[in-house]
Amino acid sequence: MDAFVAEFVGTSLLLAMGSGVVANVVLDKTKGQNSGWMVITTAWALGVFIGVVVAGPYSGAHLNPAVSIGLAIAGDFAWALVPKYVFAQVLGAMFGSGIAWLVYKDHFDATDDQGLKFAPFGTVPAIRNLPSNLVSEIVGTSVLIIVILYSTEPVIEDGSGTPIGLGSLGALPVAFLVWVIGLALGGTTGYAINPARDLGPRIMHQILPIKGKGGSDWAYSWVPIVGPVLGAAIAAGIYMLLGVGGVV
Amino acid sequence: MDAFVAEFVGTSLLLAMGSGVVANVVLDKTKGQNSGWMVITTAWALGVFIGVVVAGPYSGAHLNPAVSIGLAIAGDFAWALVPKYVFAQVLGAMFGSGIAWLVYKDHFDATDDQGLKFAPFGTVPAIRNLPSNLVSEIVGTSVLIIVILYSTEPVIEDGSGTPIGLGSLGALPVAFLVWVIGLALGGTTGYAINPARDLGPRIMHQILPIKGKGGSDWAYSWVPIVGPVLGAAIAAGIYMLLGVGGVV
Amino acid sequence: MDAFVAEFVGTSLLLAMGSGVVANVVLDKTKGQNSGWMVITTAWALGVFIGVVVAGPYSGAHLNPAVSIGLAIAGDFAWALVPKYVFAQVLGAMFGSGIAWLVYKDHFDATDDQGLKFAPFGTVPAIRNLPSNLVSEIVGTSVLIIVILYSTEPVIEDGSGTPIGLGSLGALPVAFLVWVIGLALGGTTGYAINPARDLGPRIMHQILPIKGKGGSDWAYSWVPIVGPVLGAAIAAGIYMLLGVGGVV
Amino acid sequence: MDAFVAEFVGTSLLLAMGSGVVANVVLDKTKGQNSGWMVITTAWALGVFIGVVVAGPYSGAHLNPAVSIGLAIAGDFAWALVPKYVFAQVLGAMFGSGIAWLVYKDHFDATDDQGLKFAPFGTVPAIRNLPSNLVSEIVGTSVLIIVILYSTEPVIEDGSGTPIGLGSLGALPVAFLVWVIGLALGGTTGYAINPARDLGPRIMHQILPIKGKGGSDWAYSWVPIVGPVLGAAIAAGIYMLLGVGGVV
Repeated sequence: MDAFVAEFVGTSLLLAMGSGVVANVVLDKTKGQNSGWMVITTAWALGVFIGVVVAGPYSGAHLNPAVSIGLAIAGDFAWALVPKYVFAQVLGAMFGSGIAWLVYKDHFDATDDQGLKFAPFGTVPAIRNLPSNLVSEIVGTSVLIIVILYSTEPVIEDGSGTPIGLGSLGALPVAFLVWVIGLALGGTTGYAINPARDLGPRIMHQILPIKGKGGSDWAYSWVPIVGPVLGAAIAAGIYMLLGVGGVV
Repeated sequence: MDAFVAEFVGTSLLLAMGSGVVANVVLDKTKGQNSGWMVITTAWALGVFIGVVVAGPYSGAHLNPAVSIGLAIAGDFAWALVPKYVFAQVLGAMFGSGIAWLVYKDHFDATDDQGLKFAPFGTVPAIRNLPSNLVSEIVGTSVLIIVILYSTEPVIEDGSGTPIGLGSLGALPVAFLVWVIGLALGGTTGYAINPARDLGPRIMHQILPIKGKGGSDWAYSWVPIVGPVLGAAIAAGIYMLLGVGGVV
Repeated sequence: MDAFVAEFVGTSLLLAMGSGVVANVVLDKTKGQNSGWMVITTAWALGVFIGVVVAGPYSGAHLNPAVSIGLAIAGDFAWALVPKYVFAQVLGAMFGSGIAWLVYKDHFDATDDQGLKFAPFGTVPAIRNLPSNLVSEIVGTSVLIIVILYSTEPVIEDGSGTPIGLGSLGALPVAFLVWVIGLALGGTTGYAINPARDLGPRIMHQILPIKGKGGSDWAYSWVPIVGPVLGAAIAAGIYMLLGVGGVV
Repeated sequence: MDAFVAEFVGTSLLLAMGSGVVANVVLDKTKGQNSGWMVITTAWALGVFIGVVVAGPYSGAHLNPAVSIGLAIAGDFAWALVPKYVFAQVLGAMFGSGIAWLVYKDHFDATDDQGLKFAPFGTVPAIRNLPSNLVSEIVGTSVLIIVILYSTEPVIEDGSGTPIGLGSLGALPVAFLVWVIGLALGGTTGYAINPARDLGPRIMHQILPIKGKGGSDWAYSWVPIVGPVLGAAIAAGIYMLLGVGGVV
């Protein structure tokens, strides 16, 4: 499995779980309806876990353009690979959310509210205030990237010596990291913290024949792209500033 | 402990936990009544965990005909062992759900609703639509098997060189995998994703002297058998198509 | 720290957490009031975790007479040490539940219901039917002991060659094991599955000056002693019958 | 990254998560509003996890003056480093809670209740009774420190032979430890168990321009400082009394 396929498969798994759990919690007549924030955040965390388990050995399992960009800024990932990774991630996110829609199709049909039909796809801020929402995405992603950067030494390389990142970052620590970001910082914008996770499913909401759907809220769509990219840049900057040498 | 016994014991443990938690959540007057989807999915995941802890070193801890078949298609498990494994798994699932009934017998008696009396045994779709329900079981099982296939290298073999599968797949990763499938994709059909897990307990519901019980819904019973088998085949196909060689 | 002290400290930690979480969930005006079965079972599991972390290297961290007896029957623990271990466990359980009472004293005072005041100490069956309750305790403890027996090879010994059990059983697996037993099988009797866990705190309820307390329900007290001991014996019998040799 | 910066960054991460999750659960219009004790305790535990992941290799990741003091009393940490560590921890706690306020600013504005606006910063006892509250903080911190002391052997040292503590204490065990303390003993005072965690954010509540805020409850502020310090001293005393030699 090459790195492109790995990023596609890993991000597909992440979104199948992520879009799936939101569908389970918000749509009508599901077995998990209204089962709450713990269910949602646990599934997103474990969606990362299984994505990393599968894709890790092949691509480093970024599954998120903010991770690829953050690692590239920090010098732990080759810039030349970024476009390929990002493209695979967006395609994977599209495919995964499409799978979730397929599974929950009867429940989408049984749900009247257009907002609830959109929720499994793109993020929606709890209080719409774009500058604040941008701050939320920046902070959440900064926490994600800085912890990843500090837990991924040493960097791994492909056969030609090109750094492909992540190294020792295990699937479990990164899952716990995503879990706590969701629990603690996700209450404002729904923690996209990943441009592919939001853009891919939003495109799918636009093009899929979802019965009775409303708009795909494109006016908001730049926030979960720009925020995570800025957050990744800030995190990489902090990482380079603080360095990794220490007392121990 | 030989492999047949290990599959029986491991699947018994899984179903004692799985049927038990559903009984705890749905039956009247229990301490966990209405404690929700998180409780149910966590217990099924940890039921897998303890089944794998016990059976792992003796049989590879498939505990699920879809796992045995998926591994066999992928060449990681000997076809000749499949019937023996499946038979042990169905018997184990029967025994385990019987144990759960024994523990919760007074609560079955205290519950009037026939649907709730059936819930700890077989799966029931939230919206009955057999083609959709089949899709749910196919997708859930595909996710299960593809992650297992990618996390079980290298293959382990018995003394004679026959592959018996699973290798490095740990109890914890597979528990987390089952947890997230339940959280995210379980809201439609209740995620059998395991023919033995549904068929064995359904037979038990038919034959046990459960006071005031209704029918065992045999019309639905093929879905959680055919779906998981098809899902396993699809997952194995994807695995063989994508391969395991990679950049790293 | 010698083994007696280790069992005392470990069981104290377990009960401080276990009595504490029940107090938090059932007593009036706490921050965790009515937070449910997930909170209760998670804390009992993690109470085992921290008890094992502390006591493990010194005593094998049984923390439960059923574990000591089960290991002794299976030949993995010296019978001569059983009385000492059990005594330490009962004392530790008394001390730990006393600590929890100290912490929640104002909330005990703020609670009128005598049943709720007793709940942090001893177990109370959801449906009082002693033969059924005994079955619940037997089954729950059997699951506990059989999984422990299969996950504790190889046996560890003290300097003189006396087996003190548990060996490779880690704190995390045993915590997950206790978690799932609680989630799945705890809904009937509240899963004592440990004679010291029930007897010690019940004695404390009798002797502590709890304002407005009711009786300590001594009529039920033999069930969470006899059930776990029988369960341990059955588990050890199954373990010896099935053996540990296997295909792998 | 030197030890001071590591303690600052690690404690910042802890409080960003901790203040964040309380804001998410108690403030108006968040996605996690009223999601309960499980959400709060899980996020605090995982906040410790990510703080330890980042700071561990550089400072030993105390993130808590009670840890630094407890280790110093036990001889596992140099007293000369305590002031530096504590100062970094308080500053980090201030910064982290400020970050959480920034993220949830619109939700602070949308919330009328002054108590709820204060909750993400300092702890507030469920029943105000300072001697009892002090006992709660002493007990909770004692459990924290004694488990840490028993799970951190061997001690690690910096290049000059100065002990900087924690050694083998992993991020996951300490997270589980904090999780269970919160679940079981947190229901009375909200488990500060860390003077920096309470004082730093309380100062921030005082100085930040939070719209419509009430007082910062300075009358209570000594309890979550004195209690944890006493608890750490008691734990270190018990540890030194019991010793670490054992049967095994």
